[in-house]
Order: sequence, then structure tokens, then C-alpha cells
Amino acid sequence: MNESKSKKIPVAIVGASGYAGEDLVRLLLAHPGADLVAVTSRQYAGQTLAQIFPKFAHYAKAKTLRFTEPNAELLAKVAEVVFLALPHGVAAEFAAPLMQLGCKVIDLSADFRLKNAETYKEFYAHDHPAPELLAKSVYGLPERYRTEIAHASLIACPGCYPTSILLPVLPLLKAKLIATDGIIADSLSGVSGAGRKVELDYLFAECNESMRPYGVPKHRHLSEIEQELSLAAGRTVMIQFTPHLIPVNRGILTTLYLQPTGAIEKLNEAVGACFQEAYGSEPFVRILEGKALPDTKNVVGTNFLEFAWRVDPRTKRLIVMSAEDNIVKGTSGQAVQCFNILTGLPETAGLY
Amino acid sequence: MNESKSKKIPVAIVGASGYAGEDLVRLLLAHPGADLVAVTSRQYAGQTLAQIFPKFAHYAKAKTLRFTEPNAELLAKVAEVVFLALPHGVAAEFAAPLMQLGCKVIDLSADFRLKNAETYKEFYAHDHPAPELLAKSVYGLPERYRTEIAHASLIACPGCYPTSILLPVLPLLKAKLIATDGIIADSLSGVSGAGRKVELDYLFAECNESMRPYGVPKHRHLSEIEQELSLAAGRTVMIQFTPHLIPVNRGILTTLYLQPTGAIEKLNEAVGACFQEAYGSEPFVRILEGKALPDTKNVVGTNFLEFAWRVDPRTKRLIVMSAEDNIVKGTSGQAVQCFNILTGLPETAGLY
Amino acid sequence: MNESKSKKIPVAIVGASGYAGEDLVRLLLAHPGADLVAVTSRQYAGQTLAQIFPKFAHYAKAKTLRFTEPNAELLAKVAEVVFLALPHGVAAEFAAPLMQLGCKVIDLSADFRLKNAETYKEFYAHDHPAPELLAKSVYGLPERYRTEIAHASLIACPGCYPTSILLPVLPLLKAKLIATDGIIADSLSGVSGAGRKVELDYLFAECNESMRPYGVPKHRHLSEIEQELSLAAGRTVMIQFTPHLIPVNRGILTTLYLQPTGAIEKLNEAVGACFQEAYGSEPFVRILEGKALPDTKNVVGTNFLEFAWRVDPRTKRLIVMSAEDNIVKGTSGQAVQCFNILTGLPETAGLY
Amino acid sequence: MNESKSKKIPVAIVGASGYAGEDLVRLLLAHPGADLVAVTSRQYAGQTLAQIFPKFAHYAKAKTLRFTEPNAELLAKVAEVVFLALPHGVAAEFAAPLMQLGCKVIDLSADFRLKNAETYKEFYAHDHPAPELLAKSVYGLPERYRTEIAHASLIACPGCYPTSILLPVLPLLKAKLIATDGIIADSLSGVSGAGRKVELDYLFAECNESMRPYGVPKHRHLSEIEQELSLAAGRTVMIQFTPHLIPVNRGILTTLYLQPTGAIEKLNEAVGACFQEAYGSEPFVRILEGKALPDTKNVVGTNFLEFAWRVDPRTKRLIVMSAEDNIVKGTSGQAVQCFNILTGLPETAGLY
Repeated sequence: MNESKSKKIPVAIVGASGYAGEDLVRLLLAHPGADLVAVTSRQYAGQTLAQIFPKFAHYAKAKTLRFTEPNAELLAKVAEVVFLALPHGVAAEFAAPLMQLGCKVIDLSADFRLKNAETYKEFYAHDHPAPELLAKSVYGLPERYRTEIAHASLIACPGCYPTSILLPVLPLLKAKLIATDGIIADSLSGVSGAGRKVELDYLFAECNESMRPYGVPKHRHLSEIEQELSLAAGRTVMIQFTPHLIPVNRGILTTLYLQPTGAIEKLNEAVGACFQEAYGSEPFVRILEGKALPDTKNVVGTNFLEFAWRVDPRTKRLIVMSAEDNIVKGTSGQAVQCFNILTGLPETAGLY
Repeated sequence: MNESKSKKIPVAIVGASGYAGEDLVRLLLAHPGADLVAVTSRQYAGQTLAQIFPKFAHYAKAKTLRFTEPNAELLAKVAEVVFLALPHGVAAEFAAPLMQLGCKVIDLSADFRLKNAETYKEFYAHDHPAPELLAKSVYGLPERYRTEIAHASLIACPGCYPTSILLPVLPLLKAKLIATDGIIADSLSGVSGAGRKVELDYLFAECNESMRPYGVPKHRHLSEIEQELSLAAGRTVMIQFTPHLIPVNRGILTTLYLQPTGAIEKLNEAVGACFQEAYGSEPFVRILEGKALPDTKNVVGTNFLEFAWRVDPRTKRLIVMSAEDNIVKGTSGQAVQCFNILTGLPETAGLY
Repeated sequence: MNESKSKKIPVAIVGASGYAGEDLVRLLLAHPGADLVAVTSRQYAGQTLAQIFPKFAHYAKAKTLRFTEPNAELLAKVAEVVFLALPHGVAAEFAAPLMQLGCKVIDLSADFRLKNAETYKEFYAHDHPAPELLAKSVYGLPERYRTEIAHASLIACPGCYPTSILLPVLPLLKAKLIATDGIIADSLSGVSGAGRKVELDYLFAECNESMRPYGVPKHRHLSEIEQELSLAAGRTVMIQFTPHLIPVNRGILTTLYLQPTGAIEKLNEAVGACFQEAYGSEPFVRILEGKALPDTKNVVGTNFLEFAWRVDPRTKRLIVMSAEDNIVKGTSGQAVQCFNILTGLPETAGLY
Repeated sequence: MNESKSKKIPVAIVGASGYAGEDLVRLLLAHPGADLVAVTSRQYAGQTLAQIFPKFAHYAKAKTLRFTEPNAELLAKVAEVVFLALPHGVAAEFAAPLMQLGCKVIDLSADFRLKNAETYKEFYAHDHPAPELLAKSVYGLPERYRTEIAHASLIACPGCYPTSILLPVLPLLKAKLIATDGIIADSLSGVSGAGRKVELDYLFAECNESMRPYGVPKHRHLSEIEQELSLAAGRTVMIQFTPHLIPVNRGILTTLYLQPTGAIEKLNEAVGACFQEAYGSEPFVRILEGKALPDTKNVVGTNFLEFAWRVDPRTKRLIVMSAEDNIVKGTSGQAVQCFNILTGLPETAGLY
């Protein structure tokens, strides 16, 4: 017991009070290979995990582990891997010192997802705070960059929308089954996607019994989606992306409209084979069969992304629909999946 | 009092126990120009409106008016205008005898929306029950067929999805601002859109905290949408349409992806002018300005459709987003709007 | 047209941007006897009603009427009746000058509901800002104080919870059918009851899929409930009251546990007769019959309170259950009902 | 691997297609000490678990294990412990043969909760199908009957409402801190509590934006609640119980109104000590401290019941509020907790 405990990897969470941070706490407290040794929160500094989140009180550690002010030196003394669950712009400030002090960093913000600091400025409206690190970061999408993640010192976990779009589209683009232009992604997100932000727009009575688009036509996540699609296609890909806010707590449902490159007749089989090859052995991607269509209620609370596709013989289009939990596969679960790969643990550790 | 009452037009509702029928009861009980004289329901025959719907009990009439078995001859004796709120296939059986007996018929089902009985069979999977009436029916979209509705004897009210798609797209097509191909309509609907159907899929615990597509890729409403778009364009139009089920009671939110025909630079102004001309004086169409985007919570319970548009300079696409109450502007409110036009009442009577 | 317009009573709303204020705007714009001539909001000063609430844009007045800073002198020049939809403590500051300037004031806050400034201080934790006005105010519960409301210059509309409790309990207490002690009111409220307050507790993701009590055991509304029950009983009544927050937008459902004074055998008839006498002719109270139990969905959006009762032969208790819309009968609708009585209009004007 | 697998206890679920059955499947597939070897469902016989519940498809077993028709002999050949997730009346028919064939039975229905067949008939309106087994069954509330559960052959898991009421009240009654009469339990339940019943009342559009009481004043669960309270008190206890249906998927929130037997001054400490003694070491009961009040969102998806209490110095009452997941601690999780005790596994196995 002691022995196995001593093998656990000490980890810390910076910014553990938002929805992503809280979900990371949930996953890491129960994780067989991680030892949560530090959590930071300016707002809750001095209080125990159990005081702020009574639902974790049955973990002995929750009664003793106290939130602290974030301090890179102190964190680096106790943790080998540090998760950053901070707003963009802020995360970058912590990554550099932590890395210099020898920590591996898994960042959940948008700060290290883009390779190009100019694109960052275009989409995030301020200069990148640590452009020198962009080249070192690995985009934390395990199904695409598993090898690179294993050897990374800085992992930039994808956004929630990008995950739901990239997983279905990447293999189709690489197999040249679909055209690089004309891609449309229409996405629906639960309200937790906005974070624990105390703003009028996210009050219950403003969201409940409401359906609405937002961020039209240039949402920030476009930047990383297009970067990754372009890398896969070997040429610049520009897509249409429309997010909508829907009154559920969790979940993203994305409907993709794609233009096949070849004849429509055998497309169904070709797409099936392509997805089977790409994801048939993936532990967290579920290809739906038969008449099943994705439903967020089947993935909420899990690290799965599930999807289905339909060929429309009338319009000659390929429709792919995906569902995931925006906070788990879209954020914290994916971060833990990256952590497992990075540390050589079974990829599903703490996630099944 | 008597005098003003005698001027009211006697109306009946066949199939008054579903969500559309119930909402028609609500609107017609409060209508200044209609006198609800008969309601039918096989299930509730013999009971008063107030017994089945206590919320209408403050209308004196609700305490005396009893549901009856549907009988065309009896209905024709008391009503001048008959609303049919029946499933498709069933509505057609009632329309013919009622019309022969001199009633005007406003049908909320899909039975008389299509001009072509073959298309009906293709999409509804059975022969049309009264094909001879198809030529006589008027598609009950007031903003498009106001004159024809005024002189109709049989009005086929549009489906809820088609209304949310046609109102934004028709003027753009007629003005040739958008291409006839490549139109994509991605729609979200509240669960009342499924009707008061007692099926597993529509149980609370199956719908709540769920987002899911359905009817992909060939939903029945495509038939009437494409018919009307084709008529407006003067050529065959085929579109992509994906409906989704969302956990709200009421509302449809449609996001339209459209290809401009001309240069993108002045598109915004041209579209604005086009919509202003088409809808600037319409009583139930709200063009949103500035930064506002449609939100179903702003139209639920009303007969309004509201919409906004954005030109995307990156993708050269036009995005139009619309919101309506699927049961009101999408069904019963539109039926009452048609009734007002048909009978020469102010078009907003009973709807503002 | 002009003539009928000139007969309308000019009214103003101070604090028209919260949920209660917005609902007052909705009711007064459509009201046949009121002419909304001023709306104030510090936040929105200078903007039109249509700009802030596009859903009211079809009222010509909404395009011209602009929010102003609240100013008693300016308001008194244009309005005869002023509705105050302000937080408690703030409302009292406006009432006095407005009354001195000759306006009738209908206050939706808690400031003038209590007769005793000490009780106010006990429950609201600050000195009453205008104790001299307490004796002048009338508690705006029409079913109880209709005559007094008609002659009032200051009307204090009841809280949302008190309305749902007082209407069922008052007649039973007056008829001495129930004991004055042992009364328990267990209430459930939709989230709009918290107002448009931007606080963490009322975020969608904090309220959705959540049920929770709050304000236990001494909620502020107890003060006015007990005041009115005591007045009806002719002796001090102290009750138990537990509010809960429920993920619906609107509605209050109250379950009352009451101790009958006499034998249980004929209680059902006695209670029925008591309620029939009290509310048989009331336009906004619905006594449910047969097996029907109250359901907030049957009253939401209306000014009705509906209720049912059951005698429990096992426990010898009387259970009464009531439902209302917390924003309408619980707030703004009741204010309009008071306005109608105050101005001699039909009591249901603008509310049916 | 084989060895550890051979130590797992083979279990079966009869009636695995309802919400309780599905949640049992979820818990048992992931359980370290149970080997799910059979699942029955008349409706789904012949199909695999993965086909009916794609979300379990990542368990190898889900792809091979097929639903069968329920057959006691076949089940007894493969399983040592059988969970019955059937409607009341039906469960009893399976329990007897299974027990005769040597299986231990954990029943989730109401069939074996009552000791008295007459009471069963009074509350369930039909003769008990196997009255001879009533004396053998153990009420599966681990915190109360842990020892008996360990040696039982037939375990009757408590209802969801009773669990939320009994856990807070039992220790208070035993410690004589509260009176045996005057107990009121006001409960709120999510819609999954009605089961996967396809009835109009449970449609999304009937439940959403609705709050309503039901089963007033004599709900079936009263029978087992009063049985257990009476056993604890050593005298007949009769309580008031009012359930309400609330638009959440999962969760029960119960508010209890209790009469202290002694002076109010030291009640808070006495109650705290009583609860601490009763539940301080319980793995699934969370006593909330400080200002925290229970919230169903903190227990949903877990086997925890959390509760808090308040002494009201005004009314001299004790208010206790509890929250649980109706499907987990209220049903399937409690069944697994019983299974763990019965088989000598750690009580939290598969539940943390």
C-alpha cells in the first residue's frame, strides 16, 4: 500500500475553483496513479478542499489539502506535473517559471494551442505573453499527437469545441475523402462551457427555455481548429463555425456538413473504413452503428466522444454528428488522458 | 353586447387535445372576432373544456362547451371556419366533407401543403387521401400568400420548421442575393414539436440534459420547404436540413448557411434592404439590429419570428439565424393569423 | 382614437430593468386603461424600450419611450400612478416625494408591507427609511383589501411567497377552521424569484439539476405573512416557512400543513364551503375540483393562483397546495390588479 | 488475472432495462468484486448490452452479454446473487424460485419491504404474492441493518423516498430527541423516480417548467417509512408525507419538520452529537456543517446522502433537510452497498 502510494506522481492544479478545475479535482482525487498535492485559488486560499467542495469530503486528502495562493516555486517543490486551469493570458505567465523549475505543464487554457503568435493576437486581441514557448508546446489531442504528448514538457489541451470537430474531421481530411473547403461546423454547447463566470448572460433565467447563437461568425476556437485541419490537409483550411448556447449543464453536440471529393455511391463504406482505421482501437472514441445517432446524455460525465455519419444522396453531402462532455473529453478528462500518456500510465487510468 | 357577439365568426376545432389544438383553444377563447362553438376530441368527448383544461376555466364558455366526437355535418351546422389540428393523413378525411358543406377549412397538418401528390407519397409513405384538393389549397404563410389566403377555402398552414426557414430565405432567393444551391438549414426544436405523443423518446428523463439530431438526412418537412423555395426561385431548389431535439418546451432556432451570388463587400447593405422591403411592415416579423442575435426566449408565447444575419468575410458566406415559437408562429398562431386574413379581421386580432 | 387615448391613465415605472419591472412593462404596454409615459433605469438611461427589450418593439411607444434616470419631480409631472420596482430600502426613498407631489404609488418592494418599523428592522437588518408612511400604506392583496386599495395613495404589493400562502390560509383562519399554531408552509420557487441578480448562486449551471432549501429557518417574508395571518386571526400567529430553489424560470408551489380545529369528518365540506364563499367570485383565484392538484405550468404567465386541498384522515391534518406565477400574481400582475382597483377600471383589465 | 477474475462473484440482473436496472448495469460492470453474467429483459431479449446501451460498449463484456428472457433455473446456474429490478408484484414471483435454487436475492421493488402482508394489501391494492417470504427478508438499509444484511438470503432495498426520510429521522427517534407524532416529510423528486414509464404525465413538455404535488395524502412509501420508524421508536409512528414532481432528472430533496421532546436551548448540540454518533463513520452519509444546506447537485451520480439541520427558536421545531440521488443511494447504489456487505467485500467497493 505504502509502496504503491509512493509510486504515485505528485500533481498540482493551479486555478482549481472553476468548473474545469473542479472536474480535474474530481478526476485526480480518484486517480490511481496521481497524488494531488497542491491546489491553488486566490479566492479560496486557506480553506480545505472539503470546505469548498463538500462532495469530495470522503477523500481523506480533501480534509487536509488547503487551497493556496498560486506560487510557482512552492508548486515546483511538491509537484512533478502541474495542471493550469486558468483564463487565457494568465496561464502563460505560470507556464514559463514552472517549466524552468522542472515541472511538466498541462495547460487547459488557449495560451499554447496556436503555433503562431500573430494568429493568437488576431483571435485573442492581445499580444501573446510567452511566444517563445509556442514552439515547445504539443497540442493535447491524444488521438492525433499521442507520441508527441508522451515526450512533451508543455501540453496545450484543445478547446471543447475543437475536440468535437477535429476528431471526426481529421481522418476524413487526411484520407482525402472530403474537400478542404466548404466545411461547416454547427455546434451546441451546455452552459458550463462559459465557465463559472458571474455574468448576466449565464443566469438561470436567461438561459433556461432559451436557445441562441453567439460569437457569429468568428469565434476564437476557429484559430486552433483551422490550424489543426490545415496541418492534416497539408494546405490552408478555412471553415465556418457557429456555436449555440443550450440549456443543459454539460455537453457539446456538433453537426458537420462536409463535401465528399469522390463519388457518393461508395462513400458510406469508405467513411466507415476510414473511421474504423482511425478510431477502432481508441479507448475514448465511440463510433455509433446502425440507426444510432449521438446524444449528449450518453457521454456526459465520461471521457468519450461518440459520433455517427450519414451520406445524403440528394445533396451529395456527408453529415457527421458528434457528442462529448465539454468539461471531460472537452477539457479536464482530456487533460488527464494526456497526463496518463505523459507519465506512462495506462491511458484509461482514472477515466473508466 | 349581443350585437357585437353576433358579429363574431363561429369557429370549431377538430382535434383540440394535442399541443397545437390546446394552443388554438387558448388563442380562440381570447379572440375578439371569433366565437369558439365546437371542439372535438375522441378521447375527451362529453367533458367540458374547463374539465380538461382548468386553466381556461375563467372563460364562461369553457364551463359549458363540451368536447364532441368529430362529425362534419354537425360541425358545419354551427361553424363557418373549422381548424383541423389532426395528424397528417387524418386531416384530409375531414377537409373534403367540411368544404362540401360550405365551411372554410384551416388545416394545421401536412396534408395540403404539397402541390404534388407524388411528393407527398415519397415523404409521408402513403397515398394522399384527397389529391383532388391539393390544387385548391393555399399555403398559409401570410407574409408570402396574403392575397391568396384572403380568398381561400382551404388553407394549409406551414410546418414549424418550414416557417423558420422560409421567412428568412424566400426574399433573399427572390432578390437573387443567394445561390439556389448549397443552402443548409440547421434547426433546433423544443420537445413540444413532437406533439403530445406518449413515446419513450419524449419522456422527461430522455430529453432533459440531452441534445440530439434526428431525422437525418431526409426529414418530411424538406418537401414543403423545397417546394416553396423552388417556387420563389423559379427553379428546383434542394437543401440540406438537420433538425435537433433540445430540452426546452417551446421554440425553434434555425441557423442558415447561404452562398451569396455577388460580391461580399456590399452584401450586408443589400441583405438589409431586401429584408426591410420584405418585412419592414410585417406585424409578426422582427428584424434584429445592431449586435442582437435571435433568442427563442424572446419569441416564446408570441406569434413573432425574429431574425438576424451576419456576412462572414472569411468564408464569403451569409449566415441568417431565426427564432420562433414552434407552437404559435410555427402552428396555431399562424393559423389564427390566416383566419384573420381570411375573414377580413385586423391581421393582429387576438395575437398581440 | 385620440379620445380614448386621452382617457388612459398616465403611469410610470421606476426600476424597469429587473424581472418584475420588465413584466410590468409587458403588462402596461398592452393595458387598455394605462398609458406608460415613463420608465427609469440608471443602467439603461437614454436608450429606448425597444433597444433594451426588442420583444416589445412592435409597440409604437417602445420605439420612442426612453429610459431615464429616476427623478421624482419629472415623474410626477407626467404620471398619475407610479410603480416602484426597486430593491427594498431604495423604494422608500422614492415613495415619499412622489406622494407629496400628488402621485399614487404602487410599490412592489418590501418597504411598506409591514405596519411595524421594528419588525422591519428585525427582518431587513436596517432602520426603516420612511416609517411615517407605514400607517398610510395598504397591503396590496386585492382578495383581502379590495376596498382599502381603492382608496389608497400608497399600495404595498405582497411578496410572491406571501401571496401563495395567505390566499389559501386567510379564509380558513377567519372561519376558525384551522388552529392558529402549527402552520407549516413549504414552498418551491423558480429562479426568477431571486431577481436579475448577477450572483454565482443563480448561474444556470448552479441551479439546473439542483434542488435546495435556503433562508432556513427565518426568511424575510415571514414578517408580512405572520402580520397578515395575525390580523385575520385576531391574535399572534407564528408559522414555519421553508423556501426551496427549483430549476424552473417561474412559479411558486406551496404546500401547507394545517391543524383543523374541529372534527375531521365534515372538514372537507366545511373547507369547500369556506373557499367557495371566499373565492367563488374572485377573478384570479381558481379552486381546483375533483382529482386535480395544482401545477405551476397551469398558471405561469397568468395572474391566477390555483389551489386544492386534501383532508388526511390518518393524521387529521388539512393539506392545502397552491400554485402561482411568482412574477405575475406574485408581483407585477398583482400590482396591475391593484392599479385597476385603484383607478376604477375593471379588475381584470390587461390581465385576462 | 484469471485468478482474480475467478474470485469475482457472479451476479445477474432481472429487469435490466428500466432506469434502476440500467444504473445497476453501470455499477456492476465497473465493480471490482462482481462479475455480471446475466441480464434479462423481455423487451430486449437476444440483443447485447452494447446494442441497447452503447454507452457501455467499452466494456468487453457488453459486446457479448445478451439480454435473455427471465428464467429462474438458468439464472441460478450461473449467478450466486440475483438483483431484481422489477415492478412490485412481479418481483415476488421470481424471488421464491431463485432462493430455492440457492441464490441470494437483492430485490429493488417494494415486495419484501413490509413485514405485514395486510399492510402490503392496504397500500398496494393486491394480495401479497409470497407472504411466506416476508419474515425472511431484511430491509436493505445498511446504516440500520448492516449485520442482518450480511447474513440475509433476501434483501429488500428501501424505496427512494424512505431512504431520504429514514436516515435523518431514525437516530433522532431512537435517541428520543423528537416526538413520535407530528412528523412531516415534504419531498421533491426528479422525474426518473417514476421509472421509464411511457405515460403522458412524464413527457418532457408536461414536466419541464412544472412543479406539482402528487399522491396526496397517502403515498405507498408511507407503509415502509412508518414500519421502520415504529420499529425504531418502539411504538406506532404515523407521519405526514407529501411528494412533489420536479423537473430534474435525478435527486430527492426532503425537508423534515420535527417536534423536539426537550428544551430547545441545547437541542442543536444534542442533535449534532446524535448524528455524529450515528453517521460519523458511515461511508455514504455526509453531515453538512456550518452554513451549508443540502443540494441534490452535490449527490447526483453518487451513493451519498447528505443532510443538514436547523433548530428554529421561534417555532421550537427541528428542521432536517436531506439530499440523495434517487436512483443511486435511493435504489441501485444502495443495492450494491447491500451486495458488498452480503458478500464480505469492502462496503464502498464499486461505489466510490
